[in-house]
Order: sequence, then structure tokens, then C-alpha cells
Amino acid sequence: MANNKIQPRTLAGFMELLPNEQILFNQMKEKIQKSYEKFGYLPLNTPIVELADVLLAKAGGETEKQIYRFNKGEHDLALRFDLTVPLAKYVAMHYGELSFPFKRYQIGKVYRGERPQKGRFREFYQCDIDIIGDTELNNLYDAELPNVIYTTFQELGFSDFTIHINNRKILNGLFSSLNLTEISTDIMRIIDKIAKIGEENVIKELSALGVSSEAISKIMNFIAISGSNDEKLNALDNIGITDELFVKGLSELKEVVKCIRLFGMSENNFMIDLTIARGLDYYTGTVYETFLNDYPELGSVCSGGRYDNLAEYYTDKKLPGVGISIGLTRLFYKLNELQALKFDKRAIADVLVVSASDDISVCLPIATKLRNSDINTEVYMENKKIKAKFKYADKLSVPFVIVIGETELETNTVSLKNMSTGEQLQISIEDAIKIIKGTN
Amino acid sequence: MANNKIQPRTLAGFMELLPNEQILFNQMKEKIQKSYEKFGYLPLNTPIVELADVLLAKAGGETEKQIYRFNKGEHDLALRFDLTVPLAKYVAMHYGELSFPFKRYQIGKVYRGERPQKGRFREFYQCDIDIIGDTELNNLYDAELPNVIYTTFQELGFSDFTIHINNRKILNGLFSSLNLTEISTDIMRIIDKIAKIGEENVIKELSALGVSSEAISKIMNFIAISGSNDEKLNALDNIGITDELFVKGLSELKEVVKCIRLFGMSENNFMIDLTIARGLDYYTGTVYETFLNDYPELGSVCSGGRYDNLAEYYTDKKLPGVGISIGLTRLFYKLNELQALKFDKRAIADVLVVSASDDISVCLPIATKLRNSDINTEVYMENKKIKAKFKYADKLSVPFVIVIGETELETNTVSLKNMSTGEQLQISIEDAIKIIKGTN
Repeated sequence: MANNKIQPRTLAGFMELLPNEQILFNQMKEKIQKSYEKFGYLPLNTPIVELADVLLAKAGGETEKQIYRFNKGEHDLALRFDLTVPLAKYVAMHYGELSFPFKRYQIGKVYRGERPQKGRFREFYQCDIDIIGDTELNNLYDAELPNVIYTTFQELGFSDFTIHINNRKILNGLFSSLNLTEISTDIMRIIDKIAKIGEENVIKELSALGVSSEAISKIMNFIAISGSNDEKLNALDNIGITDELFVKGLSELKEVVKCIRLFGMSENNFMIDLTIARGLDYYTGTVYETFLNDYPELGSVCSGGRYDNLAEYYTDKKLPGVGISIGLTRLFYKLNELQALKFDKRAIADVLVVSASDDISVCLPIATKLRNSDINTEVYMENKKIKAKFKYADKLSVPFVIVIGETELETNTVSLKNMSTGEQLQISIEDAIKIIKGTN
Repeated sequence: MANNKIQPRTLAGFMELLPNEQILFNQMKEKIQKSYEKFGYLPLNTPIVELADVLLAKAGGETEKQIYRFNKGEHDLALRFDLTVPLAKYVAMHYGELSFPFKRYQIGKVYRGERPQKGRFREFYQCDIDIIGDTELNNLYDAELPNVIYTTFQELGFSDFTIHINNRKILNGLFSSLNLTEISTDIMRIIDKIAKIGEENVIKELSALGVSSEAISKIMNFIAISGSNDEKLNALDNIGITDELFVKGLSELKEVVKCIRLFGMSENNFMIDLTIARGLDYYTGTVYETFLNDYPELGSVCSGGRYDNLAEYYTDKKLPGVGISIGLTRLFYKLNELQALKFDKRAIADVLVVSASDDISVCLPIATKLRNSDINTEVYMENKKIKAKFKYADKLSVPFVIVIGETELETNTVSLKNMSTGEQLQISIEDAIKIIKGTN
């Protein structure tokens, strides 16, 4: 390359796919969108750039360090780092114009200036849904979300996944009954790591936090409750904790489980998991994590939960909500790497039309006929040998090639080649359309 | 609002829609995407943030002033201001992995820090398609693009639009024959404004530029050529200019017109327009502008053209291309303001399921049945009076409401209300599904 050229390059941590992978990514995104819409969630598309003071209203620590922030004119700006803060802003701003419960989805890019590592992205898609209530929000919505996750991952082609469900009130009630409320957040943060660091280290860290060995023993007994969902609910019923919060959490969890079953979800796809607490302060009720059982190394692929107050930094209105999020970019990257994507459309065009002669224009009316029959049709328009044209179709994984030569023009037919079977037929355009559409 | 709250607000020039408008916007975006895919264009999704030196390789002047540029860590970054520069970067980077001609579409947000005005946006969607050749690119691709525009605007519900087509070689050849090549860019920039400023002012400006009155007269005679497309081509044939570039441009234009007709496009939807030059230096052949004839105040809603070399700032490879772009955000804004959107889906949910009693959970199995029949279904889950539930459906423009009460549960039926006709039927869930899907 000459010295006066600028080296074309893409920033580390910013996913840029080749077309065949982009096609797969888009399919995944569309399947998620379709699943969200199946439950009636409304689309939002908020700006990627926001005023920094608005976006950072509640941030601090790690988030603030990772943010892309800059000045333009008199404005202090930042790129959004999630879709929840923009939702909070949006609901507070447009409160009077929205219908509650406000059910929205947003699928969009967010930005975090993390140190880039393999499989970690600085620009990535989040696919969020949230239901926001005005002052209150029925616990039944907490049961709808596992059903949305269930529908979404089925749509993505997975059947062996488990949605883990817990209720933070149960944990908080436990701590309250042990007089550990003040450090409950710290305790839950430690418990949350049990899968990663093991039981022994959890006990060590709890002890280091000053929790008495008696209390640790009760906590460990509690999180060791096992069995089927019903056995766990029974164990909680009989544990003898009368703390008000605990009782409320248990009752909510029971209702969520009951309604999940009414939705018709298979018992194989969800489980009560008393160990998950989601390491975020603001969850106050139901919490979710989702695991693909064949790919445990991915960690949770869809998480979320119930919070008491979405927009307290912007408004006095009480806006409780419940939501989930899929980190699509990382999920796609990992599944693609593991060759675990469950669908395989690799081409946009259903058919490539090529001329056997130098007169390419004979292909044009035929292409229009195909497109009018709702077939994605590409015409190869370079003057190349027929072999090069087939190679192009092959590289793009186009499933069919139509060849137009002298014979075809004379007999008003087309030659249709199925690129996977190699079968070639000389037939009418109408029959070709039927075959390409798979309706023959 | 209490003093300790941060006022939630969105930056001027950043479109943020209410859900009912967002639904319309998304439909428009999806229709454009569908049209682009019908011609086999491959999807790309490049990062919004790029290295500033890469993004600004060829920029300067106005573009550079408008750009959002900032530092993060050791990086000098910028937000993309169009989708063409990222395409150039992409093709130069991935040259060895792409199949040529490389046909791609990209629909994404771009950023320009312009002074915000009504209908002008700082964050806006561009919907681009380009075909990039390796060393050369057949002129037939220039004829495909008007057909893509035609298909796209028909898909958007318009029939009365005109695609204006010209070839810059014709203009450049004219200037060459008048010995005005050196100032041809300036001349074309002036001519380009003829619709805005009128013939007289064009003459004045040309004169101010130092063009002789004899040459001005020839130029004005040239751009005054009128009549049908064939009459214009005839006039150009008989104008007596033998300049090589002119002859080549005319021959290209003739082939484009011939192939547009072969695609089956109506003569009403395109016209040769010798006055359009597209005020950009880099177009070298065919150029396009598109006008909605009922809304001339919108100006061109889809423009583009042929260029000789996409990525000369990054690579020595010669990569000619031809492309078009729709500025979706502005187009949506204007059409919405004029109430000129040609489609009216206003709801995501096809049906809202509500309980007539306090037991909302009876709705859940019914909702699953509807969703399994591919019906977008929302369950209203708050304990409100039935009237409030209908009001919610009404505000969201949901076309059907299903009510589940005691009678329905006893008789294994549902009450289905058509929200536009007011008609209410007590029928089986299977019949309700048929009616909602419009297949009854």
C-alpha cells in the first residue's frame, strides 16, 4: 500500500461481520423482535447520544469510567451504556402520553469503553423488554417474562434451556429474620458468586464480612434447598420464617410459578433457584437468569427482574417495572464460534439469474417476474464466463441459479439449477417460481 | 418536580417518537429493507464509532465541522456521518473475502452536528445500497438502481413519483467541447440549483464565473432540451457534439433507459433530466434524484449515482460503484407531518385478552393458544374495571379484544369484540383465531 493511503481498520471491541455472518446475525435479531412483538410489546428507538447529566443521573463508579463522553458545542454528551436509563428518561418525559402498563421493547446498540477482550464488546446490541406500571404493577407480569424468554429461545431454535427464577424478597426476608438486613446487599453479592467460586469460598467471604457462623449455617441451609419446584416451595413453606417480607416474596414466587404453568410452559424449562440474586442493587422482587444447558460456559444469556422505581432520578412518580435483557452481540459471537446457531439461511437472494450469452439484458424481464412473485432475485450483470457466474452464486450460497440462453429464449423457458442437489431443469418461468418458492 | 431531580430531556435534532409513530417508522424501515433484499443486496452493519483518521480520510470543510469527534483512552474517535465512508473502509479491509460485484445495503443511524431546525436531524437513518465492482462495473447496474427505487417507493405505497436520471459524462463532455472543463464543477453546481433559483439567476451566476455569453447560450440551450425520454435522446443524438466523453455518456444513458424499460418500469416513473448534476464532485456517470410528485416540497427523496473509485483513500485497488440513499428520518418526519404515510398499522398486538373477573390468570392459556397461531397477543393484567381495559385497547389501537368471563369459561368460548365495528361475538377460540387472522 502506498504511503499516502490511510490504513483501513475497525476499532477493537466493535463487531463488524462479513455478509454471510451478518445475515445470520440479522435473522437472530429479527427472531427476537418477532418474539417480543408476539406479546404486544411496543417498539422504542431512543437516541444513542444523550445529554451526559441525563444519562449519568444514577451512574457512578464503573459505569461512569466506561462511558463514552464528549463535548459538542455547548453540550456535554454521552453515548448510552444501556437501554434502561433511556427508558427511564423516556417514561418520565412522556408520562402523560403513554398508556400504562407501558410495555416496550428496544433492540439497539449500547456503548461501554471496556478493555477489549475476546468475546467482549464495546459496541453491542441489547434486546430489552420492560413493563412499567403507574404506581403499581401486577405480579402477573413477572410471570409473563419467563414465557417471553421461553418463546424467544424456542424461536431461536433452542429447546434445552432453563430459566432460573427467584424472588429477592425471600432472601431479604431471610436476612431480616437474621438481623443482617444492613449488609444483605453484600451477602447477596457473595451468594451470587456461588457457581463461580464454590460453597467454601462463599462461607469464607461471609465470615470475613462478620456474619456469625450460626447465621452462615442458616443461610447455607437455605440456599441448599433442593428438589423439584414444588418441593422447593414446600421447603420454603415449612422453613418457619415469619418475616413479613419473606412471606410476601414466597407468595409472589408461588403465583409466578402457578402462572408460568398456566401459560403452558414445560416444567423442564424453568426452575426455582434460591441462589440467584442478580448482583444489582435495584432488583426488589422476581429475578431471572437463563442458561442454555448445552452451553453452560456462556453464563446467563437472558437476565432481569423486578424493580420498585424506574425513574426516581427524574420524577416523583412511582414507576415500578419488570424487565429482561438479551446481550445479543456476545450471544451471537459465542454461538457462532461454537457453531451452535440453530438456523442456516446464508443468502439473501433466493435465485441468481445469469445469461449464457453476452446479452445480459435478456435477464431483466425474467428478474422482474420473479420479484413480482415475492422471490428475492439477483441478476449477475458482469460479462464473465458462465463458470464465473456459477462460482459467484456458490460463494454467496444462493440456492438456485436460472440460466437464460438461446434455447431458453426460443422456447420461452428457463434453465433452473438447484445448487445443493445439482439438479437442472428446463421449464417454464411459472414452474421455476413454484419450485423456488418450495410450493411444487 | 423536586429540586434534586434531573430534568429528563432529549437533545434537539434527535428524533424520539411515541410508540404509535415508532410503529409507523419501523414499518417504513422494514419495507425499505424488504425492497432492497428483493434485489439480493447483502446486509452490512458497521460500527457507529470509528477511528477519526479513518472516517475523515477524505472529509474536509463542512463535513469536518459537523462531525462528533472525541477521545477515549488513546483513541481519537468519531461518529460516522454517512454510510459511504464506512463502506469504503469495509471493502478496502475485506477485499479478499468479498465476492464482486459486491452488492450491499446498510440501514443505520448517522450523525451530523448541524444547527438543528424543524425537520433537520443530527441523528438520522440513511438507507443505502451500493454495488461495488472490482476494477470495473457494468453499466447495467446503473439501470438496476432506478428499478430498486421504483420497487421501494411502490412498497411504501406511492405510485406518483418520478426518478430523474442524467449522466455526468454528457455534461462534462459538453463543457469539454466548450473548453470549460476546468470550471465544470462550478458550472454544474450552479446548474444544479436551477429549480431553486431560476434560469435567470443561473445565467447571472455563470456570467459571474466568467463563462462567455456564447457558451452560456449553448449551455442553456442544452439544458432546455425537452420532450419525452426518446425525444431528449434524439435531441442529444443530433446536437452535433463529438466530444468522446459526451458520446460515451450518451451511449450509457441510452443503455440505462433501454434496460429500465426491460425491467418493466412504467415510463411515467422515470425521466431523463439533463439539469441534475448532484452537487458532489465524485459522481462520474449516471446520477439519480427522485421526487414524490404530490409533495415536491420534500425535494429529492432518493438520490445517488455512479462513482469511479470508492476507496482511493485506503487502497490502490480501483473500486468503481453506483449507489443510492434514502434519508429515512427526514422522509418519515415530513410524510408524517403531511399525513402522507400510505399505511396505517398502529398496533403491535392483534388482540388484547382481558378477564371480566378478578382472576386474570384464566386469560393465560388462551393467550398462549393465540400466540401459537401466530397472533400477536397481549393480556391486560392489572385489576381494573372492564371499561378501563377497553380504554387501554382503544388507546393502543388494538383491533380486537377478547373477554373471558364466567359464561365463556363455562361454555368454553370467548367473547370477541371488533374494536372498529363494535361487533361482539361469543364463539370458540378457533373461530376467534380465524376472524383475527382475517381468514374467516
